[in-house]
Amino acid sequence: MSTPEAINAEIATQTELFNKLRLENAEPAALEETRKKLGELKKSLALLKNAAGGSKDAGKKKERLLLKTPKGTRDYGPGEMFCREHVQRIVRECFVLYGGCELDTPVFERKDILAGKYGEDAKLIFDLEDQGGEQLALRYDHTVPLARYLAMGGATNTQSKLFQVGKVYRRDNPVMSKGRMREFSQADFDISGQWDSMIPDAEVISLLCTLLSRLDVGEFTIKLNHRKILDGIFEVCGVPPEKIRPISSAVDKLDKLPWAEVKKEMTEEKGLDPASADKIGEYVKHKGGRALLDQLFADTTLTANASAKQGLDEMATLFTFLDIYKVSDKISFDLSLARGLDYYTGIIYEAIVEASAPPGFKTPDATATAEPSPPAPAAPPKKKIKKPTPAAADGEDEEIDESQVGVGSIAAGGRYDNLVGMFTSAAAGESKKGMPCVGVSIGLDRIFAIVWPRWIERGMRSKEVMAYVMAAGDGLIKERMELVQELREAGIWTDFLAKNKPKLPAQFAAGERDEVPFAIILGGDEIKAGLVTVKQQRWEIVEGKKAKVESADKGTQMRRSELVQWLKESQTFKEWSNGRLI
Amino acid sequence: MSTPEAINAEIATQTELFNKLRLENAEPAALEETRKKLGELKKSLALLKNAAGGSKDAGKKKERLLLKTPKGTRDYGPGEMFCREHVQRIVRECFVLYGGCELDTPVFERKDILAGKYGEDAKLIFDLEDQGGEQLALRYDHTVPLARYLAMGGATNTQSKLFQVGKVYRRDNPVMSKGRMREFSQADFDISGQWDSMIPDAEVISLLCTLLSRLDVGEFTIKLNHRKILDGIFEVCGVPPEKIRPISSAVDKLDKLPWAEVKKEMTEEKGLDPASADKIGEYVKHKGGRALLDQLFADTTLTANASAKQGLDEMATLFTFLDIYKVSDKISFDLSLARGLDYYTGIIYEAIVEASAPPGFKTPDATATAEPSPPAPAAPPKKKIKKPTPAAADGEDEEIDESQVGVGSIAAGGRYDNLVGMFTSAAAGESKKGMPCVGVSIGLDRIFAIVWPRWIERGMRSKEVMAYVMAAGDGLIKERMELVQELREAGIWTDFLAKNKPKLPAQFAAGERDEVPFAIILGGDEIKAGLVTVKQQRWEIVEGKKAKVESADKGTQMRRSELVQWLKESQTFKEWSNGRLI
Repeated sequence: MSTPEAINAEIATQTELFNKLRLENAEPAALEETRKKLGELKKSLALLKNAAGGSKDAGKKKERLLLKTPKGTRDYGPGEMFCREHVQRIVRECFVLYGGCELDTPVFERKDILAGKYGEDAKLIFDLEDQGGEQLALRYDHTVPLARYLAMGGATNTQSKLFQVGKVYRRDNPVMSKGRMREFSQADFDISGQWDSMIPDAEVISLLCTLLSRLDVGEFTIKLNHRKILDGIFEVCGVPPEKIRPISSAVDKLDKLPWAEVKKEMTEEKGLDPASADKIGEYVKHKGGRALLDQLFADTTLTANASAKQGLDEMATLFTFLDIYKVSDKISFDLSLARGLDYYTGIIYEAIVEASAPPGFKTPDATATAEPSPPAPAAPPKKKIKKPTPAAADGEDEEIDESQVGVGSIAAGGRYDNLVGMFTSAAAGESKKGMPCVGVSIGLDRIFAIVWPRWIERGMRSKEVMAYVMAAGDGLIKERMELVQELREAGIWTDFLAKNKPKLPAQFAAGERDEVPFAIILGGDEIKAGLVTVKQQRWEIVEGKKAKVESADKGTQMRRSELVQWLKESQTFKEWSNGRLI
Repeated sequence: MSTPEAINAEIATQTELFNKLRLENAEPAALEETRKKLGELKKSLALLKNAAGGSKDAGKKKERLLLKTPKGTRDYGPGEMFCREHVQRIVRECFVLYGGCELDTPVFERKDILAGKYGEDAKLIFDLEDQGGEQLALRYDHTVPLARYLAMGGATNTQSKLFQVGKVYRRDNPVMSKGRMREFSQADFDISGQWDSMIPDAEVISLLCTLLSRLDVGEFTIKLNHRKILDGIFEVCGVPPEKIRPISSAVDKLDKLPWAEVKKEMTEEKGLDPASADKIGEYVKHKGGRALLDQLFADTTLTANASAKQGLDEMATLFTFLDIYKVSDKISFDLSLARGLDYYTGIIYEAIVEASAPPGFKTPDATATAEPSPPAPAAPPKKKIKKPTPAAADGEDEEIDESQVGVGSIAAGGRYDNLVGMFTSAAAGESKKGMPCVGVSIGLDRIFAIVWPRWIERGMRSKEVMAYVMAAGDGLIKERMELVQELREAGIWTDFLAKNKPKLPAQFAAGERDEVPFAIILGGDEIKAGLVTVKQQRWEIVEGKKAKVESADKGTQMRRSELVQWLKESQTFKEWSNGRLI
């Protein structure tokens, strides 16, 4: 049996390896193995300590600091942030293009604001410790804080398009490689207020399509349904009123489970009459476009139901608007889409891309006719990975089959007409008029999980340095600083090596690591003559790796006084200033 | 005596008023009064309930939801976010200009990462509730998470300039109107790694000056000192080694307290020999520039001290570099600057602006000679306001004299060569090589508190809508949507009124509330003829308020097919695309 010292040393080595792999974005499998090993080591250490009499204090003294971020969170270094900022910039630009203005709310809320909004998922809320003040919790999404802001009177009609970009928190089991985190970024766009039917709804869906087209996520589909149609279907199939939400939540699992299992949940767990379940099964198999809508309009049992009829009418209006917005080809009207959250009252939608689906999953063909699709094949038996958590104190073991997890939907939303009213009524102690809302949440981490590997493939830069000032003489620190200052004053992103007398090759190497397009070289004699040498550098992808293009160019000598003007007139400067990224 | 119902109704009214005032950024005094009243009402309610037998559950049932953000936090609506985003954009641009690349760390850290880094202020850390996982706490600053990241091996030499922009958290007593919050935004820039003496230090100070010049904060001064000089002064004045940090922290109060009180703290509280205190008093009165440095070099007692000598030599090098960067006129070498945090090891600095100082405080004249300034006048007796907190559950009463509180320093930082080493050593269980660092934190909320009132004065827009599409006929909803879609596709920020048949004046009013420069009007006959009318609108400040410039212009009729091209060639489009803000 090993000594605690030996195990401790091994833990330190593995922790270092684990951190290194994480920072390098290593293969999930490699990361997984290290994580597993770390977990086992810690267990043996704990066993050993217990066997030795479990002197807790003695153990504590020797305990080493575990250098890691909390479970389900991570750092994003320069390369990743360059990519993430790019994604966020596109999202913000689209929000503004559609007339949105920005809102920012605190990262935590008073606990009673969040209470009763998330149903079963409330257990995933991160609470703050009560340190003699208010009971607080980290925000779970942007929708509830927005509704609280609106209930406080924070928006007028003209400011009815609000967007928020920021992090939200859920104590869920993370699948880091797929962008499923405990701390993750969402960008929300919501339209509040009394407007005419389906106009704001069409605006939000059009926005979502514009946004996903501009991001580099590949082909996408918007799965679309309407809560009122769904509720109408449940009613005509004989679901009693109190079972409508539980049955709806069973239907919501159809994208992950075969029909047989969902039916079992409806009948065995939730006590629904099997005949009713079969009727529902017939309906929710349908997906398509306007043809499906026509088919449902022809279903007189359904149209006799007031809820279903209203939903179908609204859907018809929406389809007309989506045609005008030229996005109908992106839509899959999907009767199996139910969405988990209770507060939706109208249309609901989810954006999926092929890259976001689990293996074997195909994006539904949105242009398909209203033919019912065949029942989903039975899922293969899942290989579960018992995941030891790296934090000894954590103690939560999870079973997640990473290979079977897709990125999931990359955006989702719907209409929620009663949420603001819940707040105004609760604050007034009586029923108060609410404010209808429709909105969408963009899952920025999931988009990043799709975009980032492509970004690496293309060898994107991770830094924006345009000019690197070097000395080919005796250090020339003052002269270098002087020129750096001058270039920065002119708005040229400039850097230099922070050494008094660096060798020229070391300076070139540093500039090349930043892929700097202009190497600017100062020499003692040149300075006296008022001259400076500029060498242009280019990078290309060679065999999947970014490499400097070798050139015989010895550089261009020019008057030092003309350098700024020359740089600003260069093609590179213009392209970079316009946001060229490679 | 009132009934609980009557008090409850009054609380609801006052809460509504309070929220309204907060959203409108009302005068602190008005806000204060409402807050006070609310506190008193709640106290009477509690008394009444206790008197009635204190049936807690019965009271709970009628309890209304308090619609507010947590103490020390607030929402930022569209106008404010437009301003805040502008500030952040300038800050980021400066960071990139100086060769920085971005880092993002989680908003919370494992508690043991934060432990032992903040001295007495550790009590201000926001802890998360232990929900069966790790012990977590919200980050207190960006410096410690950066050091943790560096200790995990997250930066190479070429990525040694890292910046972070985000929120940090302190359970301090908030002074909201001055930008002193419990949740506040900081932007940090740090240079890590082994570089030659004072080059990174000069880079950071140059960056800070560039950044503050570009922001609209008015005249500013960088107070600068060196921990090694300060420690040397304490040594030669006879402060025993164990008292150096406590005495340093007393000196740090000289910007708020007169010398007599600081001396009292040194001698009576901290047991320093009065003769030593007087000697220190002579030194720390000095402020100035290079002349002060020369004066200290001439002080042979001081130069005989190794620590002081090293500090003075480094300061001399720094002054030379700051001359090259052309920022020496912004610097006030101030021997009374000590800074609270323990981890600084070299130069320390703080940026102050006139607008950030409490009343009666003058920005020191940075170009003054080394003449000792006269002792500060005794502070006027402080009028303390007993602040009832709005949250009944909060229970913390504070005494803060808001009228005497300035925004404080708007940026601060220094060199901390041992912090990364603390982490690597603690993780390895033995002494490990660290990594020298120097950096600065920009207080974005304090800058916002200075910039925002000026922004309002100038009548800045709060939204970016360039074109507003209207119908002068029978609603024309489809035609409007079609044109909106076309304009957005061309990258023109466009909106319209989400009503089927809105009246023309209502549409103009909506567009005017967004200060939209182009009103685009569709008419039934015009559409048939392939025409469209564009009316340009301008706003000006009239008597301190933004007002539309009345014009007899009936608009320009043009071919609908030429509209996009015409808009893109307009001066307004070009100016807006280049980020013109008014």
